[in-house]
Amino acid sequence: MRNIKLTLAYDGTPYHGWQLQPGVPTIQSVLDGTLSRILDHAVTTHGSGRTDAGVHAHGQVAHFHTPRSMDTDALHRGANALLPQQIQILSVEEVPMEFHARISATAKTYEYHLWRDSVVSPFHANFVHSIWRPLDSDGMDEATKQFIGVHDFTSFSATSAEVKSRVREVFDAEWHRTPSDWVFRIRASGFIRYMVRTIVGTLIEVGKGQIDPASIDAILEARDRQKGGPSAPSKGLHLISVEYR
Amino acid sequence: MRNIKLTLAYDGTPYHGWQLQPGVPTIQSVLDGTLSRILDHAVTTHGSGRTDAGVHAHGQVAHFHTPRSMDTDALHRGANALLPQQIQILSVEEVPMEFHARISATAKTYEYHLWRDSVVSPFHANFVHSIWRPLDSDGMDEATKQFIGVHDFTSFSATSAEVKSRVREVFDAEWHRTPSDWVFRIRASGFIRYMVRTIVGTLIEVGKGQIDPASIDAILEARDRQKGGPSAPSKGLHLISVEYR
Repeated sequence: MRNIKLTLAYDGTPYHGWQLQPGVPTIQSVLDGTLSRILDHAVTTHGSGRTDAGVHAHGQVAHFHTPRSMDTDALHRGANALLPQQIQILSVEEVPMEFHARISATAKTYEYHLWRDSVVSPFHANFVHSIWRPLDSDGMDEATKQFIGVHDFTSFSATSAEVKSRVREVFDAEWHRTPSDWVFRIRASGFIRYMVRTIVGTLIEVGKGQIDPASIDAILEARDRQKGGPSAPSKGLHLISVEYR
Repeated sequence: MRNIKLTLAYDGTPYHGWQLQPGVPTIQSVLDGTLSRILDHAVTTHGSGRTDAGVHAHGQVAHFHTPRSMDTDALHRGANALLPQQIQILSVEEVPMEFHARISATAKTYEYHLWRDSVVSPFHANFVHSIWRPLDSDGMDEATKQFIGVHDFTSFSATSAEVKSRVREVFDAEWHRTPSDWVFRIRASGFIRYMVRTIVGTLIEVGKGQIDPASIDAILEARDRQKGGPSAPSKGLHLISVEYR
């Protein structure tokens, strides 16, 4: 048996997220179907984590097992030729059997794009959340810093998420701004469902003056989803990379 | 009567080009329909030129006449709210009645994007033409220079194009290269149908070693469409801007 690691990019717009679901197209269903066809056996990939409907990926990672000896380059070219243009494999590597895309991951980086012009470019519309009204960037930056460190993210994640612990370490979080595109970049040990979108939704409320920039520590402490802000729309969210030891 | 100038961006992927055609969605049909609805009279826009199916625009210009006194900002916001996200108006200005989007134009700039990685990014796939094989960039640059100046472009335009003259002046033409994206940028007094795509298709043949880089002058001189190279696909072509006096 061989263990194969895939790094993937996808435009999440036409898909119902990563995870297999009966009756609707998902990234995993298209990927597993394609690999099964090439390798002539049922393939089940395991992603580093789910991405929700409409979320994009530039460096999602998945692994799967195969008894086939097919060369990784041939597998790479063959899969990309069969996959739709919205899902493409960036690299294929054979890895030790111990490697697990989710369990072995040590850090992930996400970006969230806020579009700041009155006109949303047709070339960006599916990849950004648009807010034209003035936002207090200094307040947003002050609030952002409070997410860095080890915290319980109960106030900033889906109450429905089934996880043992809601404690994660945020290594870096900051905004990179151009006049039309404000990009929130966050690197953490891991993320809980809706975590980035809820952090960004809260930071937008800070930008609007609806939430005090100094209150993030208290909202984290409260461990109460009602205290966090709303979740920002999925289309602005991009999984950038997954790191391994 | 007022004369209104529009500057537009569009993702050409889902449309059958600029020009009104019965029974299929075109940029002009969607735009005219939207403006007619807002202004409550039949609107016919006149573009700076047609773009073919699949061609994109970042600064297409059109004008139309209206007897309505509606404020240009209100028209701009209202139209963008009704237009699909793939077509958006960048600016609206009232201009003298003499202004004509096509006739008054003094120069246009197009870009053509060649994707140079073995994997085509899902985020660029609709906006580039992908060629992974090695291309002789020096030969392409040598050939490119010969297009600059006043030439008869019969060898590099659609034989079906109904135009009085096939003479145009190319002010600038050059390649801007990153490892994954080679961008051909050309600014000219005007363009004939398929002109940029045929120039690029010919330059690709030069890059492949199929056409001698030194032969462009002779191909121009021949005034024979059979002597030019094939036309590159529409999806890599982008109308960048239109200039006026």
